[in-house]
Amino acid sequence: MKSQNFDYSWLKALFINCTLKPSPKLSHTDGLIDISKIIMEKQWVSVEVIRAADYPIANGIMPDMTKEGWKEDAWPALYKKVLEADILIITTPIWLWDKSSQCTKIIERLYSNSWDTNESWQYAFYGKVGGCLVTWNEDGAKHCAMWVLYSLQHIGYTIPPQADAAWLWEVWPWPSYKDKNSWWPENDFTNKNTTFMTWNLMHMAHILNENKGIPAYGNLPEAWKDWNKFWFENPEYR
Amino acid sequence: MKSQNFDYSWLKALFINCTLKPSPKLSHTDGLIDISKIIMEKQWVSVEVIRAADYPIANGIMPDMTKEGWKEDAWPALYKKVLEADILIITTPIWLWDKSSQCTKIIERLYSNSWDTNESWQYAFYGKVGGCLVTWNEDGAKHCAMWVLYSLQHIGYTIPPQADAAWLWEVWPWPSYKDKNSWWPENDFTNKNTTFMTWNLMHMAHILNENKGIPAYGNLPEAWKDWNKFWFENPEYR
Amino acid sequence: MKSQNFDYSWLKALFINCTLKPSPKLSHTDGLIDISKIIMEKQWVSVEVIRAADYPIANGIMPDMTKEGWKEDAWPALYKKVLEADILIITTPIWLWDKSSQCTKIIERLYSNSWDTNESWQYAFYGKVGGCLVTWNEDGAKHCAMWVLYSLQHIGYTIPPQADAAWLWEVWPWPSYKDKNSWWPENDFTNKNTTFMTWNLMHMAHILNENKGIPAYGNLPEAWKDWNKFWFENPEYR
Amino acid sequence: MKSQNFDYSWLKALFINCTLKPSPKLSHTDGLIDISKIIMEKQWVSVEVIRAADYPIANGIMPDMTKEGWKEDAWPALYKKVLEADILIITTPIWLWDKSSQCTKIIERLYSNSWDTNESWQYAFYGKVGGCLVTWNEDGAKHCAMWVLYSLQHIGYTIPPQADAAWLWEVWPWPSYKDKNSWWPENDFTNKNTTFMTWNLMHMAHILNENKGIPAYGNLPEAWKDWNKFWFENPEYR
Repeated sequence: MKSQNFDYSWLKALFINCTLKPSPKLSHTDGLIDISKIIMEKQWVSVEVIRAADYPIANGIMPDMTKEGWKEDAWPALYKKVLEADILIITTPIWLWDKSSQCTKIIERLYSNSWDTNESWQYAFYGKVGGCLVTWNEDGAKHCAMWVLYSLQHIGYTIPPQADAAWLWEVWPWPSYKDKNSWWPENDFTNKNTTFMTWNLMHMAHILNENKGIPAYGNLPEAWKDWNKFWFENPEYR
Repeated sequence: MKSQNFDYSWLKALFINCTLKPSPKLSHTDGLIDISKIIMEKQWVSVEVIRAADYPIANGIMPDMTKEGWKEDAWPALYKKVLEADILIITTPIWLWDKSSQCTKIIERLYSNSWDTNESWQYAFYGKVGGCLVTWNEDGAKHCAMWVLYSLQHIGYTIPPQADAAWLWEVWPWPSYKDKNSWWPENDFTNKNTTFMTWNLMHMAHILNENKGIPAYGNLPEAWKDWNKFWFENPEYR
Repeated sequence: MKSQNFDYSWLKALFINCTLKPSPKLSHTDGLIDISKIIMEKQWVSVEVIRAADYPIANGIMPDMTKEGWKEDAWPALYKKVLEADILIITTPIWLWDKSSQCTKIIERLYSNSWDTNESWQYAFYGKVGGCLVTWNEDGAKHCAMWVLYSLQHIGYTIPPQADAAWLWEVWPWPSYKDKNSWWPENDFTNKNTTFMTWNLMHMAHILNENKGIPAYGNLPEAWKDWNKFWFENPEYR
Repeated sequence: MKSQNFDYSWLKALFINCTLKPSPKLSHTDGLIDISKIIMEKQWVSVEVIRAADYPIANGIMPDMTKEGWKEDAWPALYKKVLEADILIITTPIWLWDKSSQCTKIIERLYSNSWDTNESWQYAFYGKVGGCLVTWNEDGAKHCAMWVLYSLQHIGYTIPPQADAAWLWEVWPWPSYKDKNSWWPENDFTNKNTTFMTWNLMHMAHILNENKGIPAYGNLPEAWKDWNKFWFENPEYR
């Protein structure tokens, strides 16, 4: 099979790197992001990478925490980027086998917008595609990815097959991903998973774009409140 | 908005009920399945419901455990049903806040077939759509659903938005779903979530059918082994 | 059985409330803390309650992030309180079925001190006792508690039986714990679990105090490095 | 520090190996069990190792499933062994980053006895100590251990510090623990964790034995029902 290009030039992808370290400190997670980003850009996808720790994102579960008394909140501006992107990839290191507190905060803030609706009256994230990248030594990548992907599908994202990838090293104190004596940039397992994830995210975003999202029937919260029950009936009353 | 029918008559859906109780014992989980099934059948989807505990499914992680020394194994026959279905919904009760051991076993057996490929040389479950229903009192539904959906996406299923629903009751010893003094069949929250899940599963299965699955590029394990890296390149060598 | 007092006057307990809201905003989690605190104080335990959101705790995994370039970091002072306490109870609300980002951060910072050792050369948290309280409507309490308790035992805390309790309400938009129309302060299930947790934490802290902690043999990281393997032998070489 | 013996001759430990494979098939998990067992036996602890897959343990959540219509159920006899043991270590392989279905079943059956009480009217597992061992390549050990330890503490076990250990290898298709070309029996990280776990389990079991268990006050379910609230009072009514 020959190398084949796909014209995905109208797609936008946003990576949110949830490392605890602000720029310009080295983020090993950036290494995995780069792999995915390069593949996307070769298909003309517009890619943006944001590091959460570089922004004063407030803790809270309201869309704009400055309205709740916080002095500043970078989230409303970042949320606009999320809304513009067809593909969202949340990336996190692992600490004590859990996603980072920056990652937990990003999910809380996505949740704070989960009551918004799109032009079809579906939840705002419907029609978008979500993925996850995780880095660290030892253990816990799947658990972190599981949580991120579940949260994304809950608020409206579609999760294509194999929508995550990870780089792990078995135990402390081995080198981290971007350390010189790490030979993991050569690691076939991580590279394959990252590549497959990247393609499945692009393909699914393309399919949903072509289809103008998910059909707006059966998933409209306001209509449900107005007693359109979309063929629901209570089995006991049949 | 008026009630609207969708002709999804070429879709097949399979529910696997992972209650610990064999038929004909009452399964509260069947109550939630019924809600989803009725909606699907009104769109002419072919629906089958299987109760795992009714079949002698072997423990193990090989496709056919009779070849490993087990006396019997119902899985190979059930796997055919899984392959024929466009939509798979795994349903489970909660015990000690975890999915049932029947559910864990079903996931192990799906995993045992995860190296199979489809006619496009993708993993066999690519192009299919997965969901999850959970019942019980107290707590843990989201954790169970998270695990089931993550496992399904890992082996190739696409997870549409809000692909799970649950019925919970707060604490023991409250009535279970199908008990007479449970007024939860009236519960709007569970009914809405089950309805939205059902529609999103059907819509996504339809979209993927129309699209003839997920494009077979960038996600082909044999091609990767043959050094087609689908535009992957090592960022360090650019 | 009559009411019986225990003289636990030499014990200290620290509650860290991981609500996202700084004081003096209402924290429903404080409601559960109060139940536990009252029982402890009746046994003359010294109790302190801290709200994480009231302090500028830096994100990071080093003991003092001001040494890593952060402008301020309240953690080193809080860590002293943690070290002085025999009992640590981490309390968190649930957002999207997960512990709060404040809670994730507190665990990261506890982890940042996990290489410290006590006067017996065990890890610094050995001999202390850990618990967890969770509040929210819907679902996820056990998952949050599981994570908190697992993290605590990993860094050295002992977890007595039934070391967690939760208040849940079944679905949004029901009242929260301290709202007027919540009748859950009467809830026997939550009250029982909170009471049992409180007593088991006190009893275990007392037992460990009487015993001068966990015997310092077989669990000494420096001795292990110095080739004292505490009777470990490789089964293959027997 | 010299090697030191502890006379723990009155302690009993039970390992339940939850491999999917019945005897005499090779269980890699047995490799980790052996490390722990050798250390215990050198302190004169009585150790028994059971492989769950060798017994016809029924699925269900009642103490004896033959009373519910099952033809056979090995659990009641195994439960006696659990009750006789001061230390219970559940060991499991990882499949799709989760504990095995045999492990889920064992936890369900432990839960089926969780209403039993001991001679002090506490839950039957009070005063006992729990641990966990996990083996596999790739990822997920901490997640499995977290679940096992949380379940054990919920039903009454005490969890001492660092009560789990794991052997992981980074990615498929590396050798498994007991394969010839695995050099992991030499792995210092796994060996240290297994050794520390073993000692902490023994020390804690000894401490609880010396103390005749956890004081029987504040944790008595029947007394609670009889309105002994153990100093609980509703904070709102103070």
